Formats: sequence, structure tokens, C-alpha cells
Amino acid sequence: MLESDEGDNDGTVERALELAESGKTAEAAELLDELGPNDRAWLFAHMDAETRSSLVGALPARVAAEFVHGLGEEQAAGVIEDLEPEEAARIVLELESAERADLLAMLDTDDTERILTFLQPDQASETRTLLAYPADTAGGLMVTEVLRFQSGVTVRDVLDDLREGADTYGDYNVQYAYVVDADGALLGVLRQRDLLFAQPAQQVTDVMIPGPAFVRVDATLSSMHEFFDEHGFVGAPVLDADDRLVGVVRRFAVEEAMRRQMNRLYQRLSGIIGGDELRSMPLRERAVRRLSWLSTNIVLNILAASIIAAHQDTLQAAIVLAVFLPMISDMSGCSGNQAVAVSLRELTLGVVRPREIGRVIVKELSVGIVNGMVLGTLLGVAAGLWKSNPWLGIVVGGALAVNTVIAVAIGGAIPLILRRFRLDPALASGPLLTTVTDMCGFMLVLTLASSVIERL
Amino acid sequence: MLESDEGDNDGTVERALELAESGKTAEAAELLDELGPNDRAWLFAHMDAETRSSLVGALPARVAAEFVHGLGEEQAAGVIEDLEPEEAARIVLELESAERADLLAMLDTDDTERILTFLQPDQASETRTLLAYPADTAGGLMVTEVLRFQSGVTVRDVLDDLREGADTYGDYNVQYAYVVDADGALLGVLRQRDLLFAQPAQQVTDVMIPGPAFVRVDATLSSMHEFFDEHGFVGAPVLDADDRLVGVVRRFAVEEAMRRQMNRLYQRLSGIIGGDELRSMPLRERAVRRLSWLSTNIVLNILAASIIAAHQDTLQAAIVLAVFLPMISDMSGCSGNQAVAVSLRELTLGVVRPREIGRVIVKELSVGIVNGMVLGTLLGVAAGLWKSNPWLGIVVGGALAVNTVIAVAIGGAIPLILRRFRLDPALASGPLLTTVTDMCGFMLVLTLASSVIERL
Repeated sequence: MLESDEGDNDGTVERALELAESGKTAEAAELLDELGPNDRAWLFAHMDAETRSSLVGALPARVAAEFVHGLGEEQAAGVIEDLEPEEAARIVLELESAERADLLAMLDTDDTERILTFLQPDQASETRTLLAYPADTAGGLMVTEVLRFQSGVTVRDVLDDLREGADTYGDYNVQYAYVVDADGALLGVLRQRDLLFAQPAQQVTDVMIPGPAFVRVDATLSSMHEFFDEHGFVGAPVLDADDRLVGVVRRFAVEEAMRRQMNRLYQRLSGIIGGDELRSMPLRERAVRRLSWLSTNIVLNILAASIIAAHQDTLQAAIVLAVFLPMISDMSGCSGNQAVAVSLRELTLGVVRPREIGRVIVKELSVGIVNGMVLGTLLGVAAGLWKSNPWLGIVVGGALAVNTVIAVAIGGAIPLILRRFRLDPALASGPLLTTVTDMCGFMLVLTLASSVIERL
Repeated sequence: MLESDEGDNDGTVERALELAESGKTAEAAELLDELGPNDRAWLFAHMDAETRSSLVGALPARVAAEFVHGLGEEQAAGVIEDLEPEEAARIVLELESAERADLLAMLDTDDTERILTFLQPDQASETRTLLAYPADTAGGLMVTEVLRFQSGVTVRDVLDDLREGADTYGDYNVQYAYVVDADGALLGVLRQRDLLFAQPAQQVTDVMIPGPAFVRVDATLSSMHEFFDEHGFVGAPVLDADDRLVGVVRRFAVEEAMRRQMNRLYQRLSGIIGGDELRSMPLRERAVRRLSWLSTNIVLNILAASIIAAHQDTLQAAIVLAVFLPMISDMSGCSGNQAVAVSLRELTLGVVRPREIGRVIVKELSVGIVNGMVLGTLLGVAAGLWKSNPWLGIVVGGALAVNTVIAVAIGGAIPLILRRFRLDPALASGPLLTTVTDMCGFMLVLTLASSVIERL
């Protein structure tokens, strides 16, 4: 039943790819059912846009929606983008409200509008409402498929409705039902277990838990994570500013969003900006996105190199130093990046606050002094022995030791400073850090060297 | 109700810290109730071990367990470690089976054993069983608190049992109940809604969904993620090799584990090995863990620098090249890291398989050629203008262009190669990449330069 990690199986996915590419769309579509999500992702990544569109077009809307649901968000958006708007509308309609809005939010506004024209007016306006909420807020993560009952009804009414609507309500939406007043304001929550043990004639208001915990429609991701951490619930009602029940945000939607956020963090730290890059995307888009990051970096690198340029005389007198400059740049960058990682993690966990810069620097200084002494001694001894010149060892070892201390102090502080100024610590920490540590490192080596230049 | 992102509030947490530190433990304990998880994490990170232990000791076991539950895993383990074994046992007993085992797995084996001696024999043996399952498998993530009923009972029996056990069963464990035969083999699943609509006299075997989807106790994290992606369930029964029901793995436990895994990935990419580092950990541990990574790096750096050392004559003849060596090292590293990030992401999503190295390299070469030409031209023009020497521009620009192509091809391929050999791509990709690209880059600059040395 379960796929292996690699998705390598009996060759079904390769067969499906062959069939689809040779135009046998119907036969390929039949094989899709046997594939797990990993194989589906692989298959869709290995087809050209045209084959993909005709394959998706050959599926019943509900099945196509299931496939789209199983793909990563970038890939799902790519599939929808390639379809005719009417076809795309047919499929997104089968998705849950929150997922539909997320997917449409990734398309160009024009594409989204074209697709929305093929939805019923009420569906289109509901989707537009969801699209208007910022991503990763309660409004952006909630589903609008909510079981809501007026305060006047009885347990029997609710059970009858649940029974009749069993198909529509699906599996997980019926964990909780909500009781609202005539204005739509939330009064209480009904758990299935409460309904189980109640008399059918009882008023729902007698059975419900009144005044339940809720989140506001503009609640941030981290506050929702705290909410679910504190409460054991699988879902939370979402209220607008007028206390009206507008949707339900589910625990797993919050978990997924946290995971997406952490992935984006890592992608940005590696210089992949603007969401996941997949190698099936157009070359132009991939190159431009990567270059936007690299071109900033080259400017910062030129800035750092200017320090070396200003000390060419020293280098000319002791050319051996040129061997050590890239090493000191790289090692200080590594040490600093460790400190950045710890600060980012501590900020996420809440164990440090953005204004505790002093505390972080003190803690980093102690590690930096220990590590700087170890690394400086290692490099210093190696350099001194290599050229049988203790002064060379002292210069490069000393520079590495001091620069390690500087690098960890700066690396630990940068994420806190960026967070205080409400900038993205993941995006800017790395380049800022390496530029500063490079400049300090080059300066240290070359000024230390010039002070003992006749001995090198 | 919800905390702000920064956890900065009315000063309650600072007051609690002051009280605890001045020995007013009982008063501090009373304030804890008002704090959200972020504030609690902050508070525990800012107390010394002794204060923390006496504060935790002053709480009722259930409350203390709740606090421990709200902390990150490293911090939670730290708190438990500092307590007397009997006190620790009292608290971990209040945790769910899966969390108890996870927490004890993070302690030294001796500490774990000492704590286990204070548990009831059956609790201790249950915990030992869970400890034996590898982390991030179904066995490692499942809880053993399962509602199981023998096939002979009626709906009325189940409802009676649920009613009597309501306190023990808690909130979320009763989403599903399971029907097993006399050997403990899984026969079917009972959903609350099925019980809602059934006649009390019916046999549970008539109401249950027979032959439900399940996961094996050794299922991997990614296969469980696939399982929950495919099915809308909030939990899945876990079967051992003999089809016996041994536990339930919940959707959100899988989501949490995925998030933990991604965090570990990012930490390792930044050179933080062996789990989260918190600045409240002992200096010795922090320094040693960071050094284990840095000392590998310094050896690799010396290897790369040996290329420069072998070309000192060229450098002596054209000292200006020394300005560009660190830059070419850094820029190639950045380009290569982007390719590493895309490969790691594509492996996670399943859109690329470990043996498709050829395809990845082709895709990377195209981006590498575009980006290499842009970056090489930028740097080449800047260098040529700076020294009014087009040959300098051609050497450094050309070297950067070629090395960018090499870096992205290697960066894209390394994670796939490491994964094929079942090594950790996150841990080894970075240092491997920078060492190889540094060596290639230095070699390119210095051999290109030596071929036109009289013009530089």
C-alpha cells in the first residue's frame, strides 16, 4: 500500500508517461489511479505542458482535483495555468475553498480573473473574499465549509441535517459544528460526542459548549500555532471583527503552513527567492530569479575585495598571505552562519527576543573565544610549520582567531537586528554577515602582516 | 487571548522570573498559568538549572507536564534532566506515551533507566517498547492510547464504555475506535458518526468499516505523509508484522515530525549538528558541537588553498589576482548552493529521483551558462575598467563564468549522489561543494592568468 521513499516501483509511472506522450491519453489516465503522490509529482514534472494539459483534461474533474491536490503548490499552479480557463474552473471547483484560493493566488491576476468568470457568482465572490486575506493569516488558511446551526434548533434537527448532508459534509468537516445567532455571531460549539449523549429533543444551546475559544480572521501563523499548542482541538472557529463566524481553520492547515514557512526560510537562506524553483520551470524564469540574488552578492563581494585591493603592497611583500585569504573568509563565514542558525531557531522557539542583542552577543563571545582559539591554533601551527616561520603562523592564526569571535558575535546579532526592523532575517543575514566578516578578516590579516612585514 | 509574535506583554513573564530567582517559587508558579508557550520557553531559557528545578517541583505533575509539552524538545529534555528521577517520573507519566518516549530518548541512557525505575512495571515496559522503535517511523510516532473493542461487543457496550471512560479518553483520542479479534488483529474502524446513527443493540462488526487503511509499525515518515495526503483521516491504525493493532499515529504527529525533519535539515546545512543548539546549553557542549563541523571545514579549506600555494609564482607576477580569488570562491559557492537547494527540494517533493543525475546536470548547465555569462561579464568589465587592462577582465570574468557552470552542475548533482549512497545530503553537500568549486575556481584563475601572464 505504501510507496518506497524513492517512488521507484514496478514501472507503472514510466508506462503512464510513455502512453501520455504517445497520445494514448485515456490509457495513461487509467494508470494514474495506481500512483502515489510522489510518482504523480514525478510524472507531471516529466511531461511537457501540452501532454500534461490533455492528460488532465481526460480526467473527471474530481479526479483531476485530487491529483492537483497531491502536487506541491508551484507544480499545481503550473498545471492549472496551462489549462483552458473553463477546464481550470471545473477542476478548482472540486477543491476545498482554502486550497482553491491558495492555488488561484499563485497565478497571474489575469489568469485568476478568467477562471473566476466560469464559476457561479456566489462561488466566485466567496473565492474573491478568501483571496483578499493575506496568506498565512487565519483568513488565508481557513475553509468556509462550516457546519453552522441557528440557536433555535434542537439536537434532532442537527442530526437530521447531518444525516441528509452526509455526502456533502465529507469526513473531517464534521468534527465540530457551530451554533450562531441570527446575526451570524458565534455562540457555541457542538462536539460529536455531545450530540451522541444528548436527548434528541434538547435545544442545541443546552448541549453546546458556550463561548468557545476562537481565532480572529487576521491572526498570524505563529499565534495560531500557539493556539493549537495550548488547546487539543483539531479546528478553531474564525471570527471577523464583528464576532461573526466566517470559517474554520484546521490544525493541520496550520501545521502545513508552518512547514511551508520553514521551507521558504531555507530556500531563501540558500538564495532561492520567490518560492520553490522546479527545474521544469522556464529557463528564463529560473535564471532571472537566481541572478537577482547573485547580482547583489557580487556587489557585496567587490566591496569586500576592495580591502585587499587597498593592501596590495603588503601582499606583494608577502605573497604567501594570498593563500590564506580565501580560507579566512570561508571559515569565518561558517562560524558566523552557525550563530545565525542558532539565532533564527531561538527566535522561532521564542527563547530569545529581538531586543536581547546584548545577551546573545555575550553568549556568542564565549563560544567564539573557545572556537577561535582552537581554529586559530590549528591554522597557525599548520602555516608556521609549512613555511618554517612562526610569524606567519601568528599572523594568520591570530587573524582567524579574532575574526571567528567577530563573526559569531555579528552572526548571532544580525537576525535579531533585522527582526527588530521587521526585515526578513532569513534573506539578508547571510550576505550581510559574509560581507562584514570578509572585510574584517582581510583587514586583520593584512594589517597584522604589515606590522611584522619584514619577518614574513 | 493570543500572544503577540514577540511574546512581549504586560511584564508577567519578567515578574515570574524575578519571583522564581528570589526563591518565591510558589508565587512564581501561580503566574505561570497566564503565560503562553513562547513566554514559557523564554522563562525557562532565562533561569539557571536550580531555579528551574525548584519551580517545576512546585507544580502539580499534570501542570508541570503541560509546561514541558509546550517547550521545544531540546529544552524539554534539559528541564527533565535536571530533576530528581522520581520527580521526573511523576511528570513524564502525565505525558502521552509517544511524547514520553520521545523525551526519554533524548536523555542519557542512564538517566532514562533511573527514571523508568520509578514507573509502574507495565508503564515502564510500554515505554521501553516505544523507545525501541526508530524515531520518525510509525512505531516512533504512534501513541498506544487506543480505543479498542473486541469483535463480540455491541454498540451499546461501546457507548457505555466511552461514557464511563470519558475522562481518561480525553478529547482527540476518540475520533476513531477500533475493533479487534481475540488475537488483537485489526478487523475494522468505528467512526463517531457511525456510532451516532447506529441502533444500540447492533454488533459493532455490523457498524464498523471493515478492512480499514493502516500503516505498518516500520512505515517511514515520508510514506506516512503520503498516506495522510491520500486519505482525509486524522489518524491511522498501526499494525505490527502479525497484523496486530499496536497503536495509532495521528496526522498532526506526522506533520510535526515533518517540520522537525525540515528544521534539522536546515540546522545541518548551517553546520549545527546533533539537534538544536540553545544558548542556555553548557558552553563546552556548544563549542564542541560547532567545532566538530568547523574542524572538517578547515581541513577542506587547506586542501583548496593548496591550489593557490602551488601557483605562488603566478600570483607574485600579477598580485592583482589575489583580490579576485576570494570573490570567485564566494560567488561560485553561492551559485552552487542555489543548485543544491533546488535539488534537495525536488528530492523532497519527489519530482526528481536520485538516479536522474544526467537530467539534473543538463538542466543546471543551461542556467549555469546564462548566469555564468552575466556574472562573468559583470566582473570582467569591472576588473578590466579598474586596471584599464582588458586581459585582466578576460581572465577573472572568464574564470567566474566557467566556474559558475561547474558549480551549478556539481551543486545540482551532489545531493542526488549522496542520496543514492544513502548519505545525508544536507550534511555533506555544502562542504563538498565549496571545496570542489574553490579548487576549480583557483585553478581556472591561476592557469588562465599564467597563459597570458606578460599582459597582466
